[in-house]
Amino acid sequence: MGSAMFDFQQLAEDYGTPLYVYDMEKIKANFLAYKDAFSGRKSLICYALKANSNLSVIKIIAELDGGADCVSIGEVKRAILAGIKPYRIIFSGVGKKDSEIKEALKIGILFINVESYAELLRVEAVAKELGSIARISVRVNPNIDPKTHPYISTGLSENKFGVEMEEARRMYLYAHKSDFLQPIGVHFHIGSQLTQLDPIAQSTQKIADFARGLVAIGIDLKFFDVGGGVGICYKDEGVFDIHDYAQSILSKLSGLDVTIICEPGRSIVGNSGYLVTQVLYEKHTPKKRFVIVDGAMNDLLRPSLYDAHHGVSVIKQRKEEGELSLADVVGPICESADFLAKNIELPPMHAGDFVIFENAGAYGFSMSSNYNTRGRCAEVGVQKEGVFLLRRRESLEFLIRDELEFLNHRQK
Amino acid sequence: MGSAMFDFQQLAEDYGTPLYVYDMEKIKANFLAYKDAFSGRKSLICYALKANSNLSVIKIIAELDGGADCVSIGEVKRAILAGIKPYRIIFSGVGKKDSEIKEALKIGILFINVESYAELLRVEAVAKELGSIARISVRVNPNIDPKTHPYISTGLSENKFGVEMEEARRMYLYAHKSDFLQPIGVHFHIGSQLTQLDPIAQSTQKIADFARGLVAIGIDLKFFDVGGGVGICYKDEGVFDIHDYAQSILSKLSGLDVTIICEPGRSIVGNSGYLVTQVLYEKHTPKKRFVIVDGAMNDLLRPSLYDAHHGVSVIKQRKEEGELSLADVVGPICESADFLAKNIELPPMHAGDFVIFENAGAYGFSMSSNYNTRGRCAEVGVQKEGVFLLRRRESLEFLIRDELEFLNHRQK
Repeated sequence: MGSAMFDFQQLAEDYGTPLYVYDMEKIKANFLAYKDAFSGRKSLICYALKANSNLSVIKIIAELDGGADCVSIGEVKRAILAGIKPYRIIFSGVGKKDSEIKEALKIGILFINVESYAELLRVEAVAKELGSIARISVRVNPNIDPKTHPYISTGLSENKFGVEMEEARRMYLYAHKSDFLQPIGVHFHIGSQLTQLDPIAQSTQKIADFARGLVAIGIDLKFFDVGGGVGICYKDEGVFDIHDYAQSILSKLSGLDVTIICEPGRSIVGNSGYLVTQVLYEKHTPKKRFVIVDGAMNDLLRPSLYDAHHGVSVIKQRKEEGELSLADVVGPICESADFLAKNIELPPMHAGDFVIFENAGAYGFSMSSNYNTRGRCAEVGVQKEGVFLLRRRESLEFLIRDELEFLNHRQK
Repeated sequence: MGSAMFDFQQLAEDYGTPLYVYDMEKIKANFLAYKDAFSGRKSLICYALKANSNLSVIKIIAELDGGADCVSIGEVKRAILAGIKPYRIIFSGVGKKDSEIKEALKIGILFINVESYAELLRVEAVAKELGSIARISVRVNPNIDPKTHPYISTGLSENKFGVEMEEARRMYLYAHKSDFLQPIGVHFHIGSQLTQLDPIAQSTQKIADFARGLVAIGIDLKFFDVGGGVGICYKDEGVFDIHDYAQSILSKLSGLDVTIICEPGRSIVGNSGYLVTQVLYEKHTPKKRFVIVDGAMNDLLRPSLYDAHHGVSVIKQRKEEGELSLADVVGPICESADFLAKNIELPPMHAGDFVIFENAGAYGFSMSSNYNTRGRCAEVGVQKEGVFLLRRRESLEFLIRDELEFLNHRQK
């Protein structure tokens, strides 16, 4: 079922608005494109849960024998619950707590991506305490400009992520000698929403050289983790083909007998998701036209936070003549930051019409909040077997549950 | 108990970190300052729930006979639950759903702040359907530059809020003639984090003139709602005294027999709240020093979203020599947008030390999310009777509750 065939109006009637709708078949297809592109080598595609961590979305990946890239112990547990095998889970992130490291080691995940020397020592201490050996990889900073938004670039020396090569080499030597650490992978990740292959190819080359140096001194690397960050087309970005992406990586790995790991998130779920909103009012000021919808920045933060663009389509309740004109699409939240689209061409809109935001499957629901005491959206998945509710719309009762009992307690 | 006396370390041990701590006595004092400043006139101080809508915080306001400024029906219900009387509740916002208007009318709140002609007609239709009369006020746009951050300025023609004076006048005339509408107030709100009195005084003058015009033609205005937006000192902003603020408003109202309504939010709770975080790692790259704490942008979004500054204090576990140097304080979330403070001077920090963010009581917890599958913080209140848990830390079970059942359903 193609997204063009989605009956958003029916979905809105059945589940209410604002509503997240995911094309589950497209998620599958996007994932399988990665598997296919890397099929010439041993590979493991670890879906980056942070993009969209709905359990049913993760389950699709699990059913296709995918792995999980997790950045909190909560994400690790989500992956397990959705059916991803521990030996296909990696745990990344700059700020892991001891308790998180401990749980990850107990679960027996594939490896921990270590982001600093201090963390390496913590992982060692925790493993020692457990009497186990922690499999690790170091996130190495190739120092290549990814040419993306500064908020989502991560591979430069001024970013908080990863470690410089010289430091990383010392960490590998330390881990190699430790009784409680087993360095089995090397990792890099240069940023998010990447649209150019050059920085990826250059980074791969640098890290592959680095890895060959480690192998030469007897460190038995089994995994080469190229991170994620593959961009999608939100507006007019030129994006690359996943096969070209794979080729630009594979061509740099001669002489390394490693399993390739990739961590795609946005490129799996981004273009598979829609935020369906309903028009409440049109409003004109002397300077602006506003279409006020029932979705808001608490539902989709990307426009406010990153000045991100999401294309829209509209469904009108009645046919009418009327020219396109520029409008801002805004939500009910009481601040000017609450916009979903700025200066886009729209036909005349009326209460009851729909505005559907495209490419909202990644960093949409996962960043949503209860700001202004707005319950978060329901999420539904459309697949060939039918439409499934994946998460219930949040009620006020749900929002206040963990506050109300303490209010009552204090009233005694 | 002054905040300087708060034992943040003990609170962190008792409740874990990251943790929101509210000085409940300061909230009371801030609220009472408003009451006192406006005591020369009939007045109603309506706390703006969106700043911090914890039920126990609202309850403090209720116990001091305060009112509530709400921007969703969820907030209206929070206010009621916390003990605020319906006749002290106003409902504002640009995108109210019919169902929300209906519930508000049924509850019998003081009035609805109407933000467009289209909304006025919706309110009338809903009131007619209920066979009731809707008390309303129109949010009039004085078109005065508030000189604040563009994301939080709201009183200009290019903002989505309010209506122009001429349009507002037509709306009042329409409402005056309607059998289902009763215009009893006039409202304006020019922005948030205001630090200058001039724009407020000018706006008050303009709207007071407008109101006198309405009274002259027989529209019986009983409430003059000056909105909120009074700023607090985050860094080095000069802020005004609440008595001067009140005076700049009251001096413009001669000849109007109205009850003044103000809608303070940030200035009630902002400087009453702290985000307590614990250091996980220090990390140095060739270009930067990072202090990685267990709080993140999902807990406090303001630095990422508004480039906002929050002053910090630190608690160290052991005394040591060491010079201050510049550092970024960042969280565990996997993107470069995840920072809480940039380029601030800090002593050497170690795992287990604490970094406490000040002025975090407003738009802190209320904007927080579960991004990266991070449960939201616990909230505690300190008052002279002791320390009270106001909201439980979110567990993974809580986060996935509304997803897990649908995953299981699909597995059948």
